[in-house]
Amino acid sequence: MLTVVSIVGAGPGAPDLLTVRAVRRLAHADVVFYDGLVPAEMLAEFAPRARHICVSRRPGMSRVSPTEAAALMIEAAKAGEQVVRLRAGDPFVLARGAEELLTLVAAGVSFDLVPGLTSALAAATLTGIPLTHRGVSSAVVIVSGHAAEAYTPVLESLLPASATLVVLMGLAERDHISAALLARGWPGTTPLAIVTSASQPTERIYRTTLGRVAVDIAGLSAEDPGVIIIGEVVDVGVTLARAMTSRNEDILQEVAWQR
Amino acid sequence: MLTVVSIVGAGPGAPDLLTVRAVRRLAHADVVFYDGLVPAEMLAEFAPRARHICVSRRPGMSRVSPTEAAALMIEAAKAGEQVVRLRAGDPFVLARGAEELLTLVAAGVSFDLVPGLTSALAAATLTGIPLTHRGVSSAVVIVSGHAAEAYTPVLESLLPASATLVVLMGLAERDHISAALLARGWPGTTPLAIVTSASQPTERIYRTTLGRVAVDIAGLSAEDPGVIIIGEVVDVGVTLARAMTSRNEDILQEVAWQR
Repeated sequence: MLTVVSIVGAGPGAPDLLTVRAVRRLAHADVVFYDGLVPAEMLAEFAPRARHICVSRRPGMSRVSPTEAAALMIEAAKAGEQVVRLRAGDPFVLARGAEELLTLVAAGVSFDLVPGLTSALAAATLTGIPLTHRGVSSAVVIVSGHAAEAYTPVLESLLPASATLVVLMGLAERDHISAALLARGWPGTTPLAIVTSASQPTERIYRTTLGRVAVDIAGLSAEDPGVIIIGEVVDVGVTLARAMTSRNEDILQEVAWQR
Repeated sequence: MLTVVSIVGAGPGAPDLLTVRAVRRLAHADVVFYDGLVPAEMLAEFAPRARHICVSRRPGMSRVSPTEAAALMIEAAKAGEQVVRLRAGDPFVLARGAEELLTLVAAGVSFDLVPGLTSALAAATLTGIPLTHRGVSSAVVIVSGHAAEAYTPVLESLLPASATLVVLMGLAERDHISAALLARGWPGTTPLAIVTSASQPTERIYRTTLGRVAVDIAGLSAEDPGVIIIGEVVDVGVTLARAMTSRNEDILQEVAWQR
């Protein structure tokens, strides 16, 4: 018998932004190992009968370490249970999914992968910002903002305004990141948007410029999951957002742009 | 009454990689305007009762020009019909979605946006290639490969191996793109994978290196929709792919890696 774990992307958070394939995997699951960023409503709606085990890396959120989580997944899969590992966003985009997977593979577990919407891209689309736009940008750079050694090689290498820049997990480092780009020659007037909790009821959008982010966004908690979008496309998004309705189910509601 | 068009991302092609939200929009649609890359099965399964109008830009695939398509969408929406514009991938990632949308907005149409899986990322996850991986890459660059003026600014700017590079719509330009990267100093041994028709029954994976792509992949048609993935993470994907099952519905099947 093949021992299989399904590695499933959960998307940015709204339960209806799961793919149909992800919903089917969850429906057949006996046990779901999920990140701290996966909302409880998603599990309640799509995997109500499965056991749910939180394996967040965030301090205080989980009583299960990554090593213990891998051992539990292997044990469940070898016992013939349908195991789903549900990861916020996409399992392979800045999620350290492959590290965990190599542990499973070394233990003889096979897997299948279900891609999910990464908030790096979905945060922009959901708020009306086209990451590429003719004559403005034909490239997108997605970078982890959690530590200087992760983002410095790319930020120092990119020519100013040669691409739209999307920084994930970078709210705590936003002042250092903007300073690095200004030092590299990016104009201080480059538009910048921050989207927090994309697709969730608490979603907020903040808009400013590269030169003013340190002042304008000073109050924003660095603990929130958020995406920073940098480039002229942010201004195209402003034009579009005026005509945008945020339709969750059948509720029509104007999108609020702070600042 | 609010005149609304739903702009919906269709994902890479497999119908079950639509999001739940996209399925709901299609279920309520009176008319669906779809790209040439959207497979017919998707419309048959999820919007069987709606009118389907192809608005491909590809020569010969559609009798409707982009200008006519916009006029038809505006007319249908103003007549109170539920209009869905279904776009391959994500509407705002290298899809020229905002251009079309600005035309609709200028005519007084409001819209909502449903993000979709772009094949730029999904092609990698579906085939087991982690676009980021600890100690290997913490950034992803997505660039349009359809014309030199689109990709040159970014390719010339990026320091060799500072990020995983994903080129969409670049099969026709693959020799120019690899030559540009080699000239920029990227090692010829850098692993490179090409994924065509990701998620579809005709999906194929080709693997070689930056220095050998012109020779090894000489036979591949430039007409196919394909994604080029360049970086050391491709080799991590090889390790993982050995333990990977490609489960479409309940069929377990080994993933075939050509070359």
